[in-house]
Amino acid sequence: MSYRNQTWHLMKRPVGLLQPSDLELKEEIIDEIADGKCLIKIRYLAMDPATRGWMSETGGYMEPLPLGGPVWGVTVGEVIVSNDPDVEPGLIVTGLGPWGKYFIAEVSETQSGALGVLAPMNTDSGHDLVQYLHALGTSGATAWYGLMDIARMKPGDNVFVSAAEGSVGSLVLQIAKLKGAAKVVGTASSPEKCARVVTEYGADACIDYRNTSDLQADLRKEFPDGIDVYFDNVGGEILEAALATLARNARVAVCGMIAQYNNTDGGAPVTNLFNLLIHEAVMEGFLITSFFGTEACAKAFVEMGEWLNSGKLNAIVDKREMFDDIANAYNLLFTGKKMGRLVVTVPD
Amino acid sequence: MSYRNQTWHLMKRPVGLLQPSDLELKEEIIDEIADGKCLIKIRYLAMDPATRGWMSETGGYMEPLPLGGPVWGVTVGEVIVSNDPDVEPGLIVTGLGPWGKYFIAEVSETQSGALGVLAPMNTDSGHDLVQYLHALGTSGATAWYGLMDIARMKPGDNVFVSAAEGSVGSLVLQIAKLKGAAKVVGTASSPEKCARVVTEYGADACIDYRNTSDLQADLRKEFPDGIDVYFDNVGGEILEAALATLARNARVAVCGMIAQYNNTDGGAPVTNLFNLLIHEAVMEGFLITSFFGTEACAKAFVEMGEWLNSGKLNAIVDKREMFDDIANAYNLLFTGKKMGRLVVTVPD
Repeated sequence: MSYRNQTWHLMKRPVGLLQPSDLELKEEIIDEIADGKCLIKIRYLAMDPATRGWMSETGGYMEPLPLGGPVWGVTVGEVIVSNDPDVEPGLIVTGLGPWGKYFIAEVSETQSGALGVLAPMNTDSGHDLVQYLHALGTSGATAWYGLMDIARMKPGDNVFVSAAEGSVGSLVLQIAKLKGAAKVVGTASSPEKCARVVTEYGADACIDYRNTSDLQADLRKEFPDGIDVYFDNVGGEILEAALATLARNARVAVCGMIAQYNNTDGGAPVTNLFNLLIHEAVMEGFLITSFFGTEACAKAFVEMGEWLNSGKLNAIVDKREMFDDIANAYNLLFTGKKMGRLVVTVPD
Repeated sequence: MSYRNQTWHLMKRPVGLLQPSDLELKEEIIDEIADGKCLIKIRYLAMDPATRGWMSETGGYMEPLPLGGPVWGVTVGEVIVSNDPDVEPGLIVTGLGPWGKYFIAEVSETQSGALGVLAPMNTDSGHDLVQYLHALGTSGATAWYGLMDIARMKPGDNVFVSAAEGSVGSLVLQIAKLKGAAKVVGTASSPEKCARVVTEYGADACIDYRNTSDLQADLRKEFPDGIDVYFDNVGGEILEAALATLARNARVAVCGMIAQYNNTDGGAPVTNLFNLLIHEAVMEGFLITSFFGTEACAKAFVEMGEWLNSGKLNAIVDKREMFDDIANAYNLLFTGKKMGRLVVTVPD
């Protein structure tokens, strides 16, 4: 049997926002699967800010995507043909794959984070498959790892989260609350989003950073004793305001700097790193590839799965039927017109 | 018996470099020492960049020095009158004291870092008293704490140190070598200083950052595999170049940001903090007050005292007879016209 595959390829490196003309949808016929490999029908593609970095010349924290090759991202799919005696068709797998309909990959118990190696998911608990791209996937692992391991959040901590309405941020603030934070405050880019951060995700407050004249004063008001943990998704001026509001021995987990990904002139400057010294504070960058597949990650997924089942964790996914218009789907990440985890449904 | 004391007071908050007119030398007669207190004859005053921060409105990491009150810094002195039954005259003590000739203080075994509480020094090994302001004092403790505890230097690490000819930097690079660093490279502000960093302090190389057109390229050449440990004394553009050259899991110890202390327009911007994420790196600020007086600090002093005795550690002190012109002595820190630890000798 043969399969008609369609995959989005990167033809030009984007400048600023991704343009539809930077990509091209290419077709191929798949009729052979090597021994030891599986054919995966991709079901959902996660839209991640990090991909924007990989598309650029410098590549962010991976080698840059080669021009002319497929765009990659986190996917969830189903094994439909297996040439690996240990893998049964029907198995649900996740990992890095192309923005495409089908994918030939190796299936390995170890979540390596490598291209072309997908890991099986434990689907016994019957969660919606898209949760393996969200609370039970990269977003959830990122939120947990950054908050609990990198920033070492303790009960009673005052926690600040930027991009609090985003896929990772919305989980960070809920995990912080569930783990006993004293106060959790987010930022978001509109009054509507701020309202959701409080009502949907249970933050104590949310600052609409586009509609304030003095973010630092707002933060000082919310955190009179300073911020113990800042989970930074954006960098730039929000980071600068947070640094000015740190408590002694504060921890800043650097998860992303979305303010910089589409920035063509070198990134938002930070001029007050001196605060790290004054407050004996630490700022640490992390990549989820160092956590994914560890025992600690598996444990985190068990706890988050229980929270999902008991309704304690509100893990919203924004599914879009925009495979044919994927550049515009992707840009919803940066234009703020999406809610929770942004996922593109892949048609048959 | 009465003592004629002279002490420098802060009359104006400096803008940029300290001006002689910002200070005033005030006299007083000391003829009474309260029970439990001692009269200290101050022998040497350490000139520290941090003091510049305390002089400003915001105070850096301490309360700002009150206008009209004495300027403070690290001092070494001798007990000449004791009203504490546990303290004998002749005892050598160190801690925070005024830029003055005499000082009434409490002597406590615990090096509290508090104003007016001095700690006795173990002078059995016969080191020059000024070493209690350098290798066996705040400079040595700062170098050791930042390098070994904060940056967790391991044998085989590639180590970069800015202000490598300064009091702390010159000790950092020697400790790094003695503790098995693979390569140690510094920066300094002139060819003469760079030469000293290599010949006097044993660095593998030193970059004259004022005479290079591409610091980042220089760093990449010295560290083809990246920097494992950066001991940052300066912030600004050297920090920016170091961030761009980090190895995976690098540690940046933020000791000082001298580039910022006299800066009247908000500090040198850093635009590439994204590197912390890419390299899963950590940047941590520290204050010596959290290390001084600990058992680890005492152990560090024992080891450094042995290195001093065996000639393995070259701890250069630049003593100046400039008590009457102390503002200009202090500014030698920023104009680069001093060597090693800058100390002002206090006349009788």
